[in-house]
Amino acid sequence: MKNVVERMTDLLPEEDGCAALVTSGSNRRYLTGFPSSAGMVLVTKNGAWFMTDFRYFEAAQLKAKNCHVVMYTRASETLQKLMKEQHVKSLLLEYSTLTLAQAGDLEKACEAVGVHAIKDESLDTILRTLRIIKTPEEIQKIRDSQAITDASFEYILSRIHPGVTEREIALDIEFFMRRNGAEGVAFDLIVVSGKNGSQCHGVPSEKTIENGDFVTMDIGALLGGYHSDMTRTVAVGSVTEKQRRVYQTVLDAQLAALAAAGPGVVCSKVDKAARDIIEKDYPGTFGHSTGHGVGVEIHEWPRFAVSDPTVLLPGMVVTVEPGIYLAGEFGVRIEDMIAITASGTENLTHSPKELIIL
Amino acid sequence: MKNVVERMTDLLPEEDGCAALVTSGSNRRYLTGFPSSAGMVLVTKNGAWFMTDFRYFEAAQLKAKNCHVVMYTRASETLQKLMKEQHVKSLLLEYSTLTLAQAGDLEKACEAVGVHAIKDESLDTILRTLRIIKTPEEIQKIRDSQAITDASFEYILSRIHPGVTEREIALDIEFFMRRNGAEGVAFDLIVVSGKNGSQCHGVPSEKTIENGDFVTMDIGALLGGYHSDMTRTVAVGSVTEKQRRVYQTVLDAQLAALAAAGPGVVCSKVDKAARDIIEKDYPGTFGHSTGHGVGVEIHEWPRFAVSDPTVLLPGMVVTVEPGIYLAGEFGVRIEDMIAITASGTENLTHSPKELIIL
Repeated sequence: MKNVVERMTDLLPEEDGCAALVTSGSNRRYLTGFPSSAGMVLVTKNGAWFMTDFRYFEAAQLKAKNCHVVMYTRASETLQKLMKEQHVKSLLLEYSTLTLAQAGDLEKACEAVGVHAIKDESLDTILRTLRIIKTPEEIQKIRDSQAITDASFEYILSRIHPGVTEREIALDIEFFMRRNGAEGVAFDLIVVSGKNGSQCHGVPSEKTIENGDFVTMDIGALLGGYHSDMTRTVAVGSVTEKQRRVYQTVLDAQLAALAAAGPGVVCSKVDKAARDIIEKDYPGTFGHSTGHGVGVEIHEWPRFAVSDPTVLLPGMVVTVEPGIYLAGEFGVRIEDMIAITASGTENLTHSPKELIIL
Repeated sequence: MKNVVERMTDLLPEEDGCAALVTSGSNRRYLTGFPSSAGMVLVTKNGAWFMTDFRYFEAAQLKAKNCHVVMYTRASETLQKLMKEQHVKSLLLEYSTLTLAQAGDLEKACEAVGVHAIKDESLDTILRTLRIIKTPEEIQKIRDSQAITDASFEYILSRIHPGVTEREIALDIEFFMRRNGAEGVAFDLIVVSGKNGSQCHGVPSEKTIENGDFVTMDIGALLGGYHSDMTRTVAVGSVTEKQRRVYQTVLDAQLAALAAAGPGVVCSKVDKAARDIIEKDYPGTFGHSTGHGVGVEIHEWPRFAVSDPTVLLPGMVVTVEPGIYLAGEFGVRIEDMIAITASGTENLTHSPKELIIL
């Protein structure tokens, strides 16, 4: 199989001398496998050049893949020199991550050597086209990342009890992940309980867990540059009949969406499978989309949303996370992460989903 | 004293209908005191409007300062409506943080209602002019943040010994900070030891601490939106005469820079005070500048650098952090954070600097 730079080269516009400059951290790492806080990757029809500063040069020479490694003192001068050597005439820039200031500087550097800087969505589209389909190696990295997330869920179950705060639980999960090899968390972990559970993006607070609370934990690790994402809602002490029904409805919706997903299916249909079940009994309580792609960024493409007409293909990795949020009462969300395969789906999440009462 | 929005309003261009749109997270928080991951602040001659989505609206109404709070469903429509009401004719955009995609969207929204979007450095300059001088309240927040950093240094001293890894020390410091109230760390903490110590921006590795190592810890907390930043280098077991001499040279350089700083002094002179001492005995071993401003971002203005002609004024907060890096051998850096006062400087850092041998 061609490596990612070769596949990117195939997607560059045919016109003579057209190259691309990859500047964002996630896309640099995607192309080279090498994490760094500074640098840029020039991709031409002839290959890729990873330019970085003295801090990363030595390590990049050993570890960066699919590219030549070049050290710069002044980044723009090194870029200019490389563009001349490679007969670059036009240069695609990243649109959704480059700042006005960065784009202004790059445009000046290009103009000075007669290169036309292209500030539109072309390069973002090329990178999205590549990133939306994960290779088997990428899916393995997401599996490994999710394994830490699953382990952290198992770990935390014994540590949730009345009196502990949402914030303490969130810190405890994060520390477990990082002590067990995660580079970091995939996002600011969400731990909300009781009435706070109706805030789908709530920040862990000093509220203590009480008997009768649902505790919703939306958690994920970052490992080898790849993210994982899972949500579980558990009960503490006891549940009311209403809580039990809401939980079962979310679980039914989640299972329906999982069953609906597969190669050839339109994303909006997966969203609808979950949404129809929730809307029937709890209309207006599911205010976000059913899922999002996951990879070198925590939110990628496609989306399980009413508005996403993307057709699922093998290699896509997407979350399935319906929820019901009852303001002033409680909330429930259940989330797995799935990979689309040639014949169906693989659920990358292995934590149990039946209602747990601690 | 005028509040920060009133002071910003005073700095807006005089021309009729000129307003500014503050979009970056750090600047939104700077103006309103309210942390959020989404929103924007319109600042006109008549005041400020913080626009945000349903997730933050309720909390922002309670906690955001110096502004009206407006909820949006579609941000661009709410902005258009507000600009019409406030008779905005031209709108300054942030230059160094807004992406091409965001700027493109905002420009379209402006055009549709006859507003001229200004994509240059004007707004960044206004915000820098404000932010470079901290109010007494801001300095207190930085003091509080540094107090956690100082406490974490005292804590970690008893936990550094042969066999523990750089990574374990870094995690231990971070967990201490967060368990003791920090919102997070101010940056990815640096813990490097032995030969790794010559990498001034090294990432904590699995290398274990050994007898004879210098351990350099560049650490800082984030609290109430304000950062702190400190570096200490400690020895384990014993030091050679060479290590002792290098340590003393760095300390002499650091004390000289601290003594040089004060109101009315040019930043480059503070850099020179440290650099001259190091260059005399260890030429070419101090490859970075002597310090940087700290505030709602970890790297602000001014800089203690050869190239910074800024004159120090009361209210500026800057680090003083010379170092000597001997490739293949070891490194030493010592860093305090100071506030410029009317009569001199206040050192915000209280951890000891004499050589500690654990």
